[in-house]
Amino acid sequence: MNKEKFDLVESYMLQCMEDSAHDKEHVYRVLYNALRIAAGEDGVDFDVLICSCLLHDIGRKEQFENANICHAIAGGEKAYQFLLGNGFPLDFAQNVKECIQSHRFRKSNPPQSLEAKILFDADKLDVCGALGIARSLLYVGIVSEPLYSLCPDGTVSDGKYDEEPSFFHEYKFKLEKLYDCFYTETGKKLALNRRKAAVDFYENIYREVSISHREGQELLQKQLLENQ
Amino acid sequence: MNKEKFDLVESYMLQCMEDSAHDKEHVYRVLYNALRIAAGEDGVDFDVLICSCLLHDIGRKEQFENANICHAIAGGEKAYQFLLGNGFPLDFAQNVKECIQSHRFRKSNPPQSLEAKILFDADKLDVCGALGIARSLLYVGIVSEPLYSLCPDGTVSDGKYDEEPSFFHEYKFKLEKLYDCFYTETGKKLALNRRKAAVDFYENIYREVSISHREGQELLQKQLLENQ
Repeated sequence: MNKEKFDLVESYMLQCMEDSAHDKEHVYRVLYNALRIAAGEDGVDFDVLICSCLLHDIGRKEQFENANICHAIAGGEKAYQFLLGNGFPLDFAQNVKECIQSHRFRKSNPPQSLEAKILFDADKLDVCGALGIARSLLYVGIVSEPLYSLCPDGTVSDGKYDEEPSFFHEYKFKLEKLYDCFYTETGKKLALNRRKAAVDFYENIYREVSISHREGQELLQKQLLENQ
Repeated sequence: MNKEKFDLVESYMLQCMEDSAHDKEHVYRVLYNALRIAAGEDGVDFDVLICSCLLHDIGRKEQFENANICHAIAGGEKAYQFLLGNGFPLDFAQNVKECIQSHRFRKSNPPQSLEAKILFDADKLDVCGALGIARSLLYVGIVSEPLYSLCPDGTVSDGKYDEEPSFFHEYKFKLEKLYDCFYTETGKKLALNRRKAAVDFYENIYREVSISHREGQELLQKQLLENQ
């Protein structure tokens, strides 16, 4: 892809995402991750890959406004129309659309082409490690969920059997399980390099809050009983 | 403090904070932290301490609605009025008010009494370690700030000299410097036990994003140059 085409696609991406500073950062990281993963693969169509990465989340706004819309499906369609309208070949637009529409983790629609697999892995890599922890916490803050839930006995739940949403729930149900769902060797390797950072963070915060609750509650009960 | 008085003060706290699930969790942790710190001190007035902890953030709503109002000052005054109105002695209400009004980090108004110092340390402990990282990220999400800023050359800034708000800025300007501002030995010890978790997290996320940006940008430049 030459600089002129890159700038055209990039400016359309920025226009689609103008409301969200966070998502823009994420788009560039996915592009960079994808290029790092592609360096370990043969026969990559870099034009399709770069274009798919830049445009992979342009359907976010549609999904945000209507939760029944899947941002991958909507974004793929928007990208297809944009590319055709700007003189890109039909098969190129079709390939980009397929990459974008299969980048979300859905069993019914797995990525097929090499470029689709690289985009999928590059996007998942951004939810791994310390960065994945940070992005999940930003989201928990935005949607006003708590960090953790308490068990009926007042101790801190580790999230594993929680039914209510929280950061610990998200970690146990999603973040912890990510590392097995990569398609490329390089993607899996980069993800595993980040795994310890996420595990350590979860274990540290769980220890901090569970000790604080357990010891504090014992001391509080003692105080209240002494003064009955 | 007996159970009846505890329940009365707790229910007033819950009533003041009914809009915010997060702040309630924080209030209980501060209470638990304070009791753990108090276990290492002689001559603690536990009634003043427990009451001050429960009510220390009841002025948050006032500060949220008007940024010129300091939640510590407003909360101390609210607690004082509540306690007098519910038959607590005047000097007790005055002591609680002083604890609450000096719990915020302000050079002009440092904590004076032992209970005020314990509340201050218990509140600061909740910004240390992995928990402090998590609470800061929730806040960054709520106020829509980015994780990091980019330097003019496109590399990721470590936050140290940033002027724009971001999580990295918050870490370098506030979280990293917390560990020197404790009044009690136990508070300082508990804080230092958590320090490595925060340092490790920051170093891990900084490494993840800076490598991604640096390597990815080099690969992108190469792609764009090859196709000129």
